[in-house]
Amino acid sequence: MAVYTHVSDDEISNFIAEYNIGKIVSFKGIAEGIENSNYILQTTQDSFILTLYEKRVNADDLPFFLGLMDHLAEKGINCATPIRDKKGEILKTLCARPAALISFLKGMSLSHPEPSDCFQLGSALAFMHIAASDFNIHRPNNLSLQGWKDLYKTCQKNHKKASSFGEGFFKDLGQEIEYLIQNFPNDLPKGIIHADLFPDNVFFLEGKLSGLIDYYFACHDMLAYDIAVCINAWCFDEDFNFKPEKSKELLRGYQSVRPLSAAEMAGLPILCRGAAVRFLLTRLYDYQNTASGALVTVKDPAEYQAKLAYHQGVVNFSEYGI
Amino acid sequence: MAVYTHVSDDEISNFIAEYNIGKIVSFKGIAEGIENSNYILQTTQDSFILTLYEKRVNADDLPFFLGLMDHLAEKGINCATPIRDKKGEILKTLCARPAALISFLKGMSLSHPEPSDCFQLGSALAFMHIAASDFNIHRPNNLSLQGWKDLYKTCQKNHKKASSFGEGFFKDLGQEIEYLIQNFPNDLPKGIIHADLFPDNVFFLEGKLSGLIDYYFACHDMLAYDIAVCINAWCFDEDFNFKPEKSKELLRGYQSVRPLSAAEMAGLPILCRGAAVRFLLTRLYDYQNTASGALVTVKDPAEYQAKLAYHQGVVNFSEYGI
Repeated sequence: MAVYTHVSDDEISNFIAEYNIGKIVSFKGIAEGIENSNYILQTTQDSFILTLYEKRVNADDLPFFLGLMDHLAEKGINCATPIRDKKGEILKTLCARPAALISFLKGMSLSHPEPSDCFQLGSALAFMHIAASDFNIHRPNNLSLQGWKDLYKTCQKNHKKASSFGEGFFKDLGQEIEYLIQNFPNDLPKGIIHADLFPDNVFFLEGKLSGLIDYYFACHDMLAYDIAVCINAWCFDEDFNFKPEKSKELLRGYQSVRPLSAAEMAGLPILCRGAAVRFLLTRLYDYQNTASGALVTVKDPAEYQAKLAYHQGVVNFSEYGI
Repeated sequence: MAVYTHVSDDEISNFIAEYNIGKIVSFKGIAEGIENSNYILQTTQDSFILTLYEKRVNADDLPFFLGLMDHLAEKGINCATPIRDKKGEILKTLCARPAALISFLKGMSLSHPEPSDCFQLGSALAFMHIAASDFNIHRPNNLSLQGWKDLYKTCQKNHKKASSFGEGFFKDLGQEIEYLIQNFPNDLPKGIIHADLFPDNVFFLEGKLSGLIDYYFACHDMLAYDIAVCINAWCFDEDFNFKPEKSKELLRGYQSVRPLSAAEMAGLPILCRGAAVRFLLTRLYDYQNTASGALVTVKDPAEYQAKLAYHQGVVNFSEYGI
């Protein structure tokens, strides 16, 4: 839930005057994203999203994020696209913050994705990987092995606050991270990944996938790791039971566009373990660092503890339905 | 900042199927209102606001609030209007909460209203008073003299938490409430008042007032008290200095539609004191009862302390520019 920065009517009017997008009809803060302030802007021409980047986003990364969205849109990928002002700029300043006006993507996210939705997701993800392959700005994945180890140490120091996660939990998690450091693949095909493609970030309109949003974790990493993030985020039910029919369709959709190599398939179980650790750690960190009484919804770290346990028990990648 | 209740895509799709408003194009939670959950819904036909009424709104009052908006819209007042479903109903249930779909009002609120905006405000307020005069549901004003006294006692009990408001502050405020109880008029023309017509609740589009929103404090009371609320909310600058040119235009706009009686004019100073006390008390209560660390912005009670002091010094109603 966002809108940290209040933009006055004068400020938005002056800002809009720098674009060729018509006159303002309405302007409302939306409760979307937890990193930035977001507004929905309606003009006499169209609807747009205005994003003000708050301190959790590194301003140095914005040319990568916005450039990637621009690049993907040019390639015909359905995604929110930065709008150019009269001077051709996409990264601007508003209320002393970096800001960008983004196209309004029709559709809404699914609360209960079906296997057929997962097929569409897989196919869209593969198209995105291919379309991004010639984007020429590099951004490393700060939330991979070394990042997990660092975050683990921070959480371990704080762990007295997280009463439901005790010594045994931290010992097991530390061992898992050591296992991943020893065994994680690093020779699989790499490229730009979305890295956060949860159902919230995928819109559907009348049953068809209409686009992908929120590229603010995108980075360079193994492409199959992006699939592993999606398996974690899309292919378990509300009680954290794995749903192989969803994973099967996700992988079938992906491979209908970009077939996986044998090494990528074989790597899926450990990549899924890594992705589960990544979200377990960031949720644990947020859980430890959110003031009680705050209106922010803290997602339950235990969800990814359960998902990690599932992947740890996978003997063969065929269990993912491939 | 709102959206307390999450409405899933399935839930909104089923809900929308009960209306003749086209198919969903997008659905986003908005950061508007502090009492309810609000969403902006775009369909193939139009934009709408979906409101889910949370526990701070008494469900028994909803027929009054929604009926009033419907009544005002029928009379040609620009305001958000409840949409009827296929059965003609406006008050519905969604996610186990009372819910209503409301028309989308174009425009945006002003951060820095000018005197000419205050003229338009005054005129729109008077039109609303006249249009509401034959609405036939009654709702008393719970936030008048007795309500202030009760709220004062509650705040006084809590006052150790509100460290910047000490014994002297509470003694003065108690004396002010006693003065109001002894001297408040009760024989001025009554009718339905908005009772919360702050700049946030008045939309402008290209310099013209486009409508009034948020009728959830509307009630029966003296019409001139509604003007007193507006004088407090619109006619001071950011340092809480009174701006007589704004008040003058507000009153000129009001009287261009509904001239005030001599008794109403003479009552303005004490009505303004009462309105300042009303907002001072509710802000003080919120200030005392909001968890530190919560993302809700608590408005500063001192603003209304300063405004009250101004009105206490008014010798003649002509100081309001009448």
